[in-house]
Amino acid sequence: MPRLHDVLALQRLTDDVFRSPPMPTLLKRTFGGQLVGQALAAALQTAPQALVPHSLHGYFLQPGLPRRPTQLHVERLHDSRSFVTRHVTTRQDERTVFSVSVSFQRAAPGPDEQEAMPSVPDPDDVAAFVPPPPVLARLLNEEWPDWDLRMVPRRRTAEGLPQAHGQYWMRHREPLADAPALHTCGLAYLSDLTLLGTATLPHPSPPVMAASLDHCLWLLRPFRVDDWLLYDQVSPSSGNGRGLAQGRFFDRKGRLVAVVAQEGLLRWSPR
Amino acid sequence: MPRLHDVLALQRLTDDVFRSPPMPTLLKRTFGGQLVGQALAAALQTAPQALVPHSLHGYFLQPGLPRRPTQLHVERLHDSRSFVTRHVTTRQDERTVFSVSVSFQRAAPGPDEQEAMPSVPDPDDVAAFVPPPPVLARLLNEEWPDWDLRMVPRRRTAEGLPQAHGQYWMRHREPLADAPALHTCGLAYLSDLTLLGTATLPHPSPPVMAASLDHCLWLLRPFRVDDWLLYDQVSPSSGNGRGLAQGRFFDRKGRLVAVVAQEGLLRWSPR
Repeated sequence: MPRLHDVLALQRLTDDVFRSPPMPTLLKRTFGGQLVGQALAAALQTAPQALVPHSLHGYFLQPGLPRRPTQLHVERLHDSRSFVTRHVTTRQDERTVFSVSVSFQRAAPGPDEQEAMPSVPDPDDVAAFVPPPPVLARLLNEEWPDWDLRMVPRRRTAEGLPQAHGQYWMRHREPLADAPALHTCGLAYLSDLTLLGTATLPHPSPPVMAASLDHCLWLLRPFRVDDWLLYDQVSPSSGNGRGLAQGRFFDRKGRLVAVVAQEGLLRWSPR
Repeated sequence: MPRLHDVLALQRLTDDVFRSPPMPTLLKRTFGGQLVGQALAAALQTAPQALVPHSLHGYFLQPGLPRRPTQLHVERLHDSRSFVTRHVTTRQDERTVFSVSVSFQRAAPGPDEQEAMPSVPDPDDVAAFVPPPPVLARLLNEEWPDWDLRMVPRRRTAEGLPQAHGQYWMRHREPLADAPALHTCGLAYLSDLTLLGTATLPHPSPPVMAASLDHCLWLLRPFRVDDWLLYDQVSPSSGNGRGLAQGRFFDRKGRLVAVVAQEGLLRWSPR
Protein backbone atom coordinates (compact mmCIF):
# COMPACT_ATOMS: atom_id res chain seq x y z
CA MET A 1 0.00 0.00 0.00
CA PRO A 2 1.21 3.55 -0.65
CA ARG A 3 3.11 5.41 2.06
CA LEU A 4 2.19 9.00 2.82
CA HIS A 5 5.42 10.17 1.19
CA ASP A 6 4.56 8.36 -2.03
CA VAL A 7 1.05 9.78 -2.12
CA LEU A 8 2.36 13.33 -1.72
CA ALA A 9 5.41 13.01 -4.01
CA LEU A 10 4.05 14.82 -7.06
CA GLN A 11 5.99 15.16 -10.26
CA ARG A 12 6.07 18.78 -11.40
CA LEU A 13 5.40 19.03 -15.13
CA THR A 14 5.22 22.85 -15.39
CA ASP A 15 4.97 25.66 -12.82
CA ASP A 16 1.31 24.89 -12.23
CA VAL A 17 0.78 21.34 -13.48
CA PHE A 18 1.63 18.23 -11.47
CA ARG A 19 1.33 14.48 -12.01
CA SER A 20 0.87 11.52 -9.73
CA PRO A 21 1.32 7.93 -10.91
CA PRO A 22 -1.29 5.30 -10.01
CA MET A 23 -0.98 4.26 -6.35
CA PRO A 24 -1.34 0.62 -5.27
CA THR A 25 -4.69 0.23 -3.52
CA LEU A 26 -7.39 -2.28 -2.69
CA LEU A 27 -10.07 0.34 -3.31
CA LYS A 28 -12.16 0.47 -6.48
CA ARG A 29 -12.40 4.28 -6.27
CA THR A 30 -9.52 6.52 -5.22
CA PHE A 31 -9.60 7.36 -1.49
CA GLY A 32 -10.96 10.89 -1.07
CA GLY A 33 -8.24 11.78 1.43
CA GLN A 34 -5.64 11.03 -1.26
CA LEU A 35 -7.30 13.49 -3.63
CA VAL A 36 -7.48 16.16 -0.90
CA GLY A 37 -3.90 15.61 0.28
CA GLN A 38 -2.45 15.62 -3.22
CA ALA A 39 -4.34 18.76 -4.26
CA LEU A 40 -3.11 20.53 -1.14
CA ALA A 41 0.45 19.37 -1.87
CA ALA A 42 0.20 20.82 -5.39
CA ALA A 43 -1.23 24.13 -4.15
CA LEU A 44 1.54 24.38 -1.52
CA GLN A 45 4.20 24.24 -4.22
CA THR A 46 2.72 27.28 -5.97
CA ALA A 47 2.34 29.52 -2.88
CA PRO A 48 5.01 31.69 -1.22
CA GLN A 49 6.67 29.83 1.66
CA ALA A 50 5.94 32.69 4.08
CA LEU A 51 2.22 31.92 3.83
CA VAL A 52 0.61 28.82 5.32
CA PRO A 53 -2.60 27.09 4.23
CA HIS A 54 -5.49 27.84 6.59
CA SER A 55 -8.48 26.36 4.75
CA LEU A 56 -9.66 24.37 1.77
CA HIS A 57 -13.04 23.62 0.21
CA GLY A 58 -13.45 20.91 -2.40
CA TYR A 59 -15.97 18.85 -4.36
CA PHE A 60 -15.56 15.24 -5.44
CA LEU A 61 -17.01 15.33 -8.96
CA GLN A 62 -16.45 11.81 -10.30
CA PRO A 63 -14.95 8.65 -8.81
CA GLY A 64 -11.16 8.52 -9.09
CA LEU A 65 -9.86 5.46 -10.95
CA PRO A 66 -6.90 4.03 -9.01
CA ARG A 67 -5.21 2.55 -12.11
CA ARG A 68 -5.08 5.82 -14.02
CA PRO A 69 -2.41 8.51 -13.52
CA THR A 70 -3.60 11.83 -12.17
CA GLN A 71 -2.92 15.37 -13.37
CA LEU A 72 -3.32 18.33 -11.03
CA HIS A 73 -3.80 21.77 -12.57
CA VAL A 74 -3.32 24.78 -10.29
CA GLU A 75 -5.02 28.08 -11.06
CA ARG A 76 -3.74 31.15 -9.21
CA LEU A 77 -7.02 32.80 -8.18
CA HIS A 78 -5.57 35.62 -6.10
CA ASP A 79 -2.27 36.88 -4.68
CA SER A 80 -1.96 39.62 -2.08
CA ARG A 81 0.51 40.34 0.68
CA SER A 82 -1.54 38.65 3.40
CA PHE A 83 -3.62 36.07 1.51
CA VAL A 84 -3.12 33.80 -1.49
CA THR A 85 -5.81 31.58 -3.05
CA ARG A 86 -5.29 28.62 -5.37
CA HIS A 87 -7.77 26.43 -7.21
CA VAL A 88 -6.71 22.89 -8.03
CA THR A 89 -8.47 20.70 -10.58
CA THR A 90 -7.58 17.02 -10.41
CA ARG A 91 -8.05 15.18 -13.71
CA GLN A 92 -7.65 11.66 -15.01
CA ASP A 93 -7.48 11.69 -18.80
CA GLU A 94 -10.47 13.89 -19.71
CA ARG A 95 -12.38 13.28 -16.48
CA THR A 96 -12.44 15.93 -13.74
CA VAL A 97 -12.30 14.05 -10.47
CA PHE A 98 -11.83 16.70 -7.79
CA SER A 99 -12.07 20.49 -7.67
CA VAL A 100 -10.78 22.39 -4.63
CA SER A 101 -9.86 25.90 -3.54
CA VAL A 102 -7.10 26.44 -0.98
CA SER A 103 -6.43 29.66 0.93
CA PHE A 104 -3.06 30.66 2.43
CA GLN A 105 -2.40 33.33 5.03
CA ARG A 106 0.66 35.18 6.28
CA ALA A 107 1.02 34.58 10.05
CA ALA A 108 -0.99 37.19 11.97
CA PRO A 109 -0.75 36.84 15.75
CA GLY A 110 -3.79 37.86 17.79
CA PRO A 111 -5.94 36.87 20.75
CA ASP A 112 -6.66 33.15 20.99
CA GLU A 113 -9.84 31.34 22.06
CA GLN A 114 -11.12 27.83 21.44
CA GLU A 115 -13.66 25.24 22.49
CA ALA A 116 -12.48 22.86 25.20
CA MET A 117 -11.46 19.34 24.23
CA PRO A 118 -14.02 16.72 25.23
CA SER A 119 -13.04 14.45 28.07
CA VAL A 120 -11.94 11.08 26.62
CA PRO A 121 -9.71 8.19 27.72
CA ASP A 122 -6.03 8.28 26.71
CA PRO A 123 -5.20 6.58 23.41
CA ASP A 124 -3.24 3.91 25.31
CA ASP A 125 -6.43 2.99 27.18
CA VAL A 126 -8.52 2.62 24.02
CA ALA A 127 -8.64 -0.39 21.70
CA ALA A 128 -7.75 -0.30 18.03
CA PHE A 129 -10.68 0.61 15.79
CA VAL A 130 -12.12 -2.52 14.18
CA PRO A 131 -15.16 -1.81 11.97
CA PRO A 132 -17.71 -4.58 12.62
CA PRO A 133 -18.00 -5.94 9.05
CA PRO A 134 -14.95 -8.27 8.63
CA VAL A 135 -14.42 -7.03 5.08
CA LEU A 136 -14.08 -3.43 6.35
CA ALA A 137 -11.80 -4.42 9.24
CA ARG A 138 -9.46 -6.21 6.83
CA LEU A 139 -9.59 -3.29 4.40
CA LEU A 140 -8.65 -0.79 7.10
CA ASN A 141 -5.67 -2.92 8.14
CA GLU A 142 -4.43 -3.61 4.65
CA GLU A 143 -5.13 -0.26 2.99
CA TRP A 144 -3.98 2.05 5.81
CA PRO A 145 -1.34 0.07 7.75
CA ASP A 146 0.66 3.25 8.49
CA TRP A 147 -2.12 4.80 10.56
CA ASP A 148 -2.98 3.80 14.10
CA LEU A 149 -6.70 4.34 14.77
CA ARG A 150 -8.28 3.81 18.18
CA MET A 151 -12.00 4.22 18.78
CA VAL A 152 -13.41 5.71 21.97
CA PRO A 153 -16.43 3.53 22.94
CA ARG A 154 -19.65 4.98 21.55
CA ARG A 155 -22.56 6.34 23.52
CA ARG A 156 -25.97 4.96 22.67
CA THR A 157 -29.43 6.43 22.48
CA ALA A 158 -32.35 5.28 24.62
CA GLU A 159 -33.33 2.99 21.71
CA GLY A 160 -29.91 1.31 21.84
CA LEU A 161 -28.65 2.82 18.59
CA PRO A 162 -25.30 4.65 18.59
CA GLN A 163 -25.52 8.43 18.74
CA ALA A 164 -24.39 10.28 15.59
CA HIS A 165 -21.07 10.90 17.28
CA GLY A 166 -17.64 9.35 16.81
CA GLN A 167 -14.34 9.85 18.62
CA TYR A 168 -11.08 8.38 17.39
CA TRP A 169 -7.47 8.80 18.40
CA MET A 170 -5.35 8.77 15.24
CA ARG A 171 -1.66 9.01 14.42
CA HIS A 172 0.90 8.04 11.82
CA ARG A 173 2.77 5.07 13.29
CA GLU A 174 6.25 6.01 12.04
CA PRO A 175 7.82 9.37 12.98
CA LEU A 176 7.73 11.86 10.11
CA ALA A 177 10.16 14.65 9.21
CA ASP A 178 9.81 18.09 10.83
CA ALA A 179 8.22 19.52 7.68
CA PRO A 180 4.97 21.37 8.46
CA ALA A 181 3.67 20.86 4.90
CA LEU A 182 3.98 17.08 5.30
CA HIS A 183 1.92 17.11 8.49
CA THR A 184 -0.64 19.47 6.93
CA CYS A 185 -1.11 17.25 3.87
CA GLY A 186 -1.10 14.22 6.17
CA LEU A 187 -4.02 15.63 8.14
CA ALA A 188 -5.87 16.48 4.92
CA TYR A 189 -5.39 12.84 3.89
CA LEU A 190 -6.46 11.51 7.30
CA SER A 191 -9.47 13.79 7.66
CA ASP A 192 -11.49 11.80 5.09
CA LEU A 193 -11.13 8.59 7.14
CA THR A 194 -14.15 7.47 9.26
CA LEU A 195 -15.85 10.90 9.13
CA LEU A 196 -18.83 10.11 6.90
CA GLY A 197 -19.49 6.92 8.87
CA THR A 198 -20.69 9.12 11.72
CA ALA A 199 -23.73 10.12 9.66
CA THR A 200 -24.76 6.47 9.28
CA LEU A 201 -24.60 5.57 12.99
CA PRO A 202 -28.13 6.55 14.09
CA HIS A 203 -29.74 4.50 11.31
CA PRO A 204 -30.87 0.93 12.03
CA SER A 205 -29.10 -0.46 8.94
CA PRO A 206 -25.93 0.68 7.16
CA PRO A 207 -26.36 2.32 3.74
CA VAL A 208 -25.75 0.18 0.67
CA MET A 209 -23.65 2.99 -0.78
CA ALA A 210 -21.67 5.88 0.73
CA ALA A 211 -19.45 8.39 -1.08
CA SER A 212 -17.97 11.75 -0.10
CA LEU A 213 -19.49 14.70 -1.97
CA ASP A 214 -17.49 17.62 -0.59
CA HIS A 215 -14.75 18.23 1.94
CA CYS A 216 -13.64 21.30 3.84
CA LEU A 217 -10.88 21.77 6.30
CA TRP A 218 -9.83 24.70 8.48
CA LEU A 219 -6.27 24.52 9.79
CA LEU A 220 -6.22 26.47 13.04
CA ARG A 221 -3.01 25.76 14.95
CA PRO A 222 0.26 23.83 14.29
CA PHE A 223 0.23 20.06 14.84
CA ARG A 224 1.99 16.80 14.00
CA VAL A 225 0.23 13.74 12.57
CA ASP A 226 2.87 11.38 14.04
CA ASP A 227 1.63 12.29 17.52
CA TRP A 228 -1.87 11.38 18.73
CA LEU A 229 -4.77 13.54 17.54
CA LEU A 230 -8.34 13.15 18.75
CA TYR A 231 -10.81 13.24 15.83
CA ASP A 232 -14.15 14.20 17.40
CA GLN A 233 -17.02 13.81 14.92
CA VAL A 234 -20.71 14.58 14.91
CA SER A 235 -23.42 14.35 12.26
CA PRO A 236 -25.99 17.14 12.60
CA SER A 237 -28.21 15.74 9.87
CA SER A 238 -28.85 12.92 7.44
CA GLY A 239 -31.74 12.77 5.01
CA ASN A 240 -32.67 13.15 1.35
CA GLY A 241 -29.96 10.63 0.51
CA ARG A 242 -27.18 12.69 2.04
CA GLY A 243 -25.42 12.89 5.40
CA LEU A 244 -23.51 15.84 6.85
CA ALA A 245 -20.62 15.34 9.29
CA GLN A 246 -18.46 17.81 11.20
CA GLY A 247 -15.15 16.95 12.82
CA ARG A 248 -12.63 18.54 15.15
CA PHE A 249 -8.99 17.51 15.62
CA PHE A 250 -7.46 18.14 19.05
CA ASP A 251 -3.86 17.41 19.99
CA ARG A 252 -2.98 15.69 23.29
CA LYS A 253 -2.62 19.05 25.02
CA GLY A 254 -6.23 19.86 24.15
CA ARG A 255 -5.46 22.43 21.47
CA LEU A 256 -8.04 22.54 18.67
CA VAL A 257 -5.80 22.21 15.60
CA ALA A 258 -8.30 21.68 12.78
CA VAL A 259 -12.02 21.62 11.95
CA VAL A 260 -13.51 19.53 9.14
CA ALA A 261 -16.89 19.31 7.44
CA GLN A 262 -18.09 16.86 4.85
CA GLU A 263 -21.32 15.91 3.18
CA GLY A 264 -21.69 12.48 1.64
CA LEU A 265 -24.08 10.55 -0.53
CA LEU A 266 -25.85 7.81 1.46
CA ARG A 267 -28.11 5.33 -0.28
CA TRP A 268 -30.12 2.84 1.70
CA SER A 269 -31.82 1.09 -1.20
CA PRO A 270 -30.31 0.09 -4.54
CA ARG A 271 -31.45 2.13 -7.53
CA MET B 1 -31.89 50.06 0.19
CA PRO B 2 -32.13 47.09 -2.19
CA ARG B 3 -34.97 44.61 -1.80
CA LEU B 4 -34.21 40.90 -2.01
CA HIS B 5 -35.90 40.73 -5.41
CA ASP B 6 -33.62 43.47 -6.76
CA VAL B 7 -30.49 41.80 -5.42
CA LEU B 8 -31.42 38.52 -7.08
CA ALA B 9 -32.75 39.95 -10.37
CA LEU B 10 -29.76 39.19 -12.58
CA GLN B 11 -29.61 40.25 -16.21
CA ARG B 12 -28.66 37.27 -18.40
CA LEU B 13 -26.03 38.29 -20.97
CA THR B 14 -25.34 34.83 -22.41
CA ASP B 15 -26.21 31.26 -21.32
CA ASP B 16 -23.58 31.37 -18.61
CA VAL B 17 -22.84 35.06 -18.01
CA PHE B 18 -24.98 37.33 -15.84
CA ARG B 19 -24.85 40.97 -14.78
CA SER B 20 -26.01 42.86 -11.73
CA PRO B 21 -26.14 46.66 -11.61
CA PRO B 22 -24.74 48.50 -8.57
CA MET B 23 -27.11 48.22 -5.58
CA PRO B 24 -27.80 51.15 -3.29
CA THR B 25 -26.01 50.56 0.01
CA LEU B 26 -24.48 52.31 3.01
CA LEU B 27 -21.62 49.79 3.05
CA LYS B 28 -18.16 50.56 1.71
CA ARG B 29 -17.66 46.93 0.68
CA THR B 30 -20.37 44.77 -0.87
CA PHE B 31 -22.24 42.67 1.71
CA GLY B 32 -20.94 39.11 1.52
CA GLY B 33 -24.46 37.69 1.63
CA GLN B 34 -25.26 39.61 -1.56
CA LEU B 35 -22.31 37.98 -3.34
CA VAL B 36 -23.36 34.53 -2.11
CA GLY B 37 -27.05 35.01 -2.96
CA GLN B 38 -26.35 36.38 -6.44
CA ALA B 39 -23.86 33.63 -7.30
CA LEU B 40 -26.39 31.01 -6.20
CA ALA B 41 -29.09 32.74 -8.30
CA ALA B 42 -26.79 32.61 -11.35
CA ALA B 43 -25.92 28.94 -10.80
CA LEU B 44 -29.62 28.09 -10.39
CA GLN B 45 -30.40 29.45 -13.85
CA THR B 46 -27.87 27.08 -15.44
CA ALA B 47 -28.99 23.87 -13.69
CA PRO B 48 -31.89 21.56 -14.64
CA GLN B 49 -35.02 22.45 -12.69
CA ALA B 50 -35.43 18.87 -11.45
CA LEU B 51 -32.28 19.26 -9.35
CA VAL B 52 -32.08 21.43 -6.24
CA PRO B 53 -29.01 23.08 -4.72
CA HIS B 54 -27.81 21.22 -1.61
CA SER B 55 -24.48 22.93 -0.88
CA LEU B 56 -22.10 25.72 -1.81
CA HIS B 57 -18.51 26.57 -0.88
CA GLY B 58 -17.05 30.00 -1.69
CA TYR B 59 -14.11 32.31 -1.07
CA PHE B 60 -14.26 36.10 -0.86
CA LEU B 61 -11.13 37.10 -2.78
CA GLN B 62 -11.25 40.91 -2.85
CA PRO B 63 -13.67 43.48 -1.40
CA GLY B 64 -16.68 44.12 -3.65
CA LEU B 65 -17.08 47.76 -4.70
CA PRO B 66 -20.76 48.72 -4.31
CA ARG B 67 -20.66 51.38 -7.07
CA ARG B 68 -19.36 49.03 -9.75
CA PRO B 69 -21.56 46.66 -11.76
CA THR B 70 -20.94 42.95 -11.28
CA GLN B 71 -20.46 40.17 -13.80
CA LEU B 72 -21.09 36.55 -12.86
CA HIS B 73 -19.46 33.83 -14.98
CA VAL B 74 -20.77 30.29 -14.58
CA GLU B 75 -18.58 27.31 -15.41
CA ARG B 76 -20.31 23.93 -15.78
CA LEU B 77 -17.98 21.67 -13.80
CA HIS B 78 -19.98 18.49 -14.00
CA ASP B 79 -23.38 17.17 -15.15
CA SER B 80 -24.75 13.76 -14.32
CA ARG B 81 -28.22 12.36 -13.78
CA SER B 82 -28.17 12.75 -10.01
CA PHE B 83 -25.70 15.59 -9.41
CA VAL B 84 -24.74 18.82 -11.16
CA THR B 85 -21.89 21.13 -10.11
CA ARG B 86 -21.40 24.76 -11.12
CA HIS B 87 -18.56 27.17 -10.40
CA VAL B 88 -19.39 30.88 -10.33
CA THR B 89 -16.77 33.61 -10.55
CA THR B 90 -18.01 37.07 -9.59
CA ARG B 91 -16.05 39.91 -11.21
CA GLN B 92 -16.06 43.67 -11.17
CA ASP B 93 -14.14 45.01 -14.16
CA GLU B 94 -10.92 42.95 -14.03
CA ARG B 95 -11.12 42.17 -10.30
CA THR B 96 -12.28 38.74 -9.10
CA VAL B 97 -14.39 39.35 -6.03
CA PHE B 98 -15.93 35.97 -5.18
CA SER B 99 -15.39 32.39 -6.30
CA VAL B 100 -17.90 29.69 -5.37
CA SER B 101 -18.88 26.13 -6.28
CA VAL B 102 -22.50 25.05 -6.02
CA SER B 103 -23.75 21.45 -6.07
CA PHE B 104 -27.26 20.35 -7.09
CA GLN B 105 -28.93 17.03 -6.43
CA ARG B 106 -31.96 15.19 -7.78
CA ALA B 107 -34.36 14.46 -4.91
CA ALA B 108 -33.44 11.13 -3.28
CA PRO B 109 -35.74 10.16 -0.41
CA GLY B 110 -34.23 8.16 2.43
CA PRO B 111 -34.15 7.80 6.21
CA ASP B 112 -34.08 11.08 8.11
CA GLU B 113 -32.20 12.04 11.29
CA GLN B 114 -31.19 15.39 12.74
CA GLU B 115 -29.93 17.14 15.84
CA ALA B 116 -32.65 18.54 18.11
CA MET B 117 -33.35 22.25 18.05
CA PRO B 118 -32.06 24.06 21.14
CA SER B 119 -34.68 25.28 23.57
CA VAL B 120 -35.16 29.04 23.07
CA PRO B 121 -37.94 31.56 23.71
CA ASP B 122 -40.44 32.24 20.92
CA PRO B 123 -39.53 35.07 18.56
CA ASP B 124 -42.48 37.10 19.88
CA ASP B 125 -40.95 36.95 23.36
CA VAL B 126 -37.54 38.17 22.22
CA ALA B 127 -36.49 41.78 21.59
CA ALA B 128 -35.23 43.10 18.26
CA PHE B 129 -31.47 42.72 17.83
CA VAL B 130 -29.76 46.05 18.49
CA PRO B 131 -25.96 45.85 18.21
CA PRO B 132 -24.49 47.92 21.08
CA PRO B 133 -22.45 50.41 18.99
CA PRO B 134 -25.02 53.05 17.84
CA VAL B 135 -23.42 53.23 14.41
CA LEU B 136 -23.98 49.48 13.92
CA ALA B 137 -27.54 49.61 15.24
CA ARG B 138 -28.37 52.37 12.76
CA LEU B 139 -26.62 50.51 9.94
CA LEU B 140 -28.59 47.31 10.60
CA ASN B 141 -31.88 49.26 10.54
CA GLU B 142 -31.09 51.24 7.44
CA GLU B 143 -29.24 48.63 5.38
CA TRP B 144 -31.47 45.62 6.09
CA PRO B 145 -34.95 47.07 6.82
CA ASP B 146 -36.64 44.07 5.17
CA TRP B 147 -35.30 41.59 7.71
CA ASP B 148 -36.61 41.18 11.22
CA LEU B 149 -33.81 40.05 13.58
CA ARG B 150 -34.44 39.14 17.22
CA MET B 151 -31.61 38.17 19.55
CA VAL B 152 -32.01 35.50 22.22
CA PRO B 153 -30.26 36.86 25.37
CA ARG B 154 -26.67 35.67 25.57
CA ARG B 155 -25.18 33.39 28.16
CA ARG B 156 -22.01 34.61 29.84
CA THR B 157 -18.86 32.93 31.06
CA ALA B 158 -17.73 32.93 34.70
CA GLU B 159 -15.60 35.99 33.80
CA GLY B 160 -18.68 37.89 32.65
CA LEU B 161 -17.80 37.73 28.94
CA PRO B 162 -20.38 36.40 26.51
CA GLN B 163 -19.87 32.79 25.37
CA ALA B 164 -18.90 32.33 21.72
CA HIS B 165 -22.51 31.50 20.98
CA GLY B 166 -25.27 33.48 19.31
CA GLN B 167 -28.95 32.74 18.71
CA TYR B 168 -31.16 34.89 16.51
CA TRP B 169 -34.66 34.53 15.19
CA MET B 170 -34.71 35.91 11.64
CA ARG B 171 -37.30 36.39 8.92
CA HIS B 172 -38.12 38.46 5.89
CA ARG B 173 -40.82 40.90 7.05
CA GLU B 174 -42.93 40.85 3.86
CA PRO B 175 -44.38 37.59 2.54
CA LEU B 176 -42.47 36.26 -0.47
CA ALA B 177 -43.70 34.26 -3.45
CA ASP B 178 -43.91 30.46 -3.26
CA ALA B 179 -40.72 30.08 -5.30
CA PRO B 180 -38.25 27.72 -3.59
CA ALA B 181 -35.28 29.31 -5.41
CA LEU B 182 -36.17 32.71 -3.94
CA HIS B 183 -36.17 31.34 -0.40
CA THR B 184 -32.96 29.40 -1.02
CA CYS B 185 -31.15 32.50 -2.32
CA GLY B 186 -32.71 34.52 0.50
CA LEU B 187 -31.22 32.18 3.09
CA ALA B 188 -27.83 32.33 1.34
CA TYR B 189 -28.05 36.13 1.60
CA LEU B 190 -29.17 36.04 5.23
CA SER B 191 -26.60 33.47 6.33
CA ASP B 192 -23.74 36.02 6.19
CA LEU B 193 -25.51 38.32 8.67
CA THR B 194 -24.27 38.29 12.33
CA LEU B 195 -22.42 34.95 11.94
CA LEU B 196 -18.81 36.15 12.15
CA GLY B 197 -19.68 38.35 15.12
CA THR B 198 -19.99 35.16 17.17
CA ALA B 199 -16.23 34.62 16.90
CA THR B 200 -15.56 38.05 18.46
CA LEU B 201 -17.82 37.57 21.52
CA PRO B 202 -15.36 35.90 23.92
CA HIS B 203 -12.74 38.61 23.41
CA PRO B 204 -12.59 41.57 25.83
CA SER B 205 -12.53 44.14 23.00
CA PRO B 206 -14.07 44.04 19.53
CA PRO B 207 -11.69 43.68 16.57
CA VAL B 208 -10.77 46.84 14.65
CA MET B 209 -11.42 44.95 11.42
CA ALA B 210 -13.56 41.95 10.47
CA ALA B 211 -14.15 40.50 7.01
CA SER B 212 -15.54 37.19 5.75
CA LEU B 213 -12.93 34.94 4.13
CA ASP B 214 -15.03 31.97 3.06
CA HIS B 215 -18.61 30.79 3.28
CA CYS B 216 -20.23 27.41 3.03
CA LEU B 217 -23.82 26.39 3.25
CA TRP B 218 -25.55 23.00 3.29
CA LEU B 219 -29.26 23.10 2.41
CA LEU B 220 -30.85 20.14 4.16
CA ARG B 221 -34.63 20.49 4.13
CA PRO B 222 -37.19 22.85 2.54
CA PHE B 223 -37.89 26.16 4.29
CA ARG B 224 -39.27 29.67 3.86
CA VAL B 225 -37.37 32.83 4.82
CA ASP B 226 -40.61 34.80 5.32
CA ASP B 227 -41.37 32.61 8.34
CA TRP B 228 -39.22 32.62 11.46
CA LEU B 229 -35.92 30.73 11.38
CA LEU B 230 -33.66 30.27 14.38
CA TYR B 231 -30.00 30.95 13.48
CA ASP B 232 -27.97 29.15 16.14
CA GLN B 233 -24.27 30.07 15.94
CA VAL B 234 -21.11 28.94 17.67
CA SER B 235 -17.44 29.81 17.21
CA PRO B 236 -15.19 26.81 17.88
CA SER B 237 -12.00 28.85 17.50
CA SER B 238 -10.45 32.27 17.01
CA GLY B 239 -6.73 32.94 16.77
CA ASN B 240 -3.93 33.77 14.33
CA GLY B 241 -6.00 36.72 13.13
CA ARG B 242 -8.93 34.56 12.06
CA GLY B 243 -12.20 33.39 13.59
CA LEU B 244 -14.26 30.34 12.63
CA ALA B 245 -18.03 30.25 13.09
CA GLN B 246 -20.61 27.52 12.50
CA GLY B 247 -24.34 28.10 12.22
CA ARG B 248 -27.53 26.08 12.07
CA PHE B 249 -30.92 27.26 10.81
CA PHE B 250 -34.00 25.63 12.35
CA ASP B 251 -37.59 26.36 11.38
CA ARG B 252 -40.30 26.89 14.02
CA LYS B 253 -41.18 23.20 13.95
CA GLY B 254 -37.61 22.38 14.97
CA ARG B 255 -36.52 21.01 11.60
CA LEU B 256 -32.82 21.62 10.84
CA VAL B 257 -33.06 23.25 7.40
CA ALA B 258 -29.50 24.47 6.80
CA VAL B 259 -25.97 24.41 8.22
CA VAL B 260 -23.44 27.19 7.63
CA ALA B 261 -19.70 27.61 8.24
CA GLN B 262 -17.57 30.68 7.78
CA GLU B 263 -14.07 31.80 8.61
CA GLY B 264 -13.30 35.49 8.85
CA LEU B 265 -10.35 37.79 9.17
CA LEU B 266 -10.27 39.43 12.63
CA ARG B 267 -7.70 42.12 13.40
CA TRP B 268 -7.38 43.52 16.89
CA SER B 269 -4.61 46.00 16.22
CA PRO B 270 -4.18 48.30 13.22
CA ARG B 271 -1.35 47.36 10.88
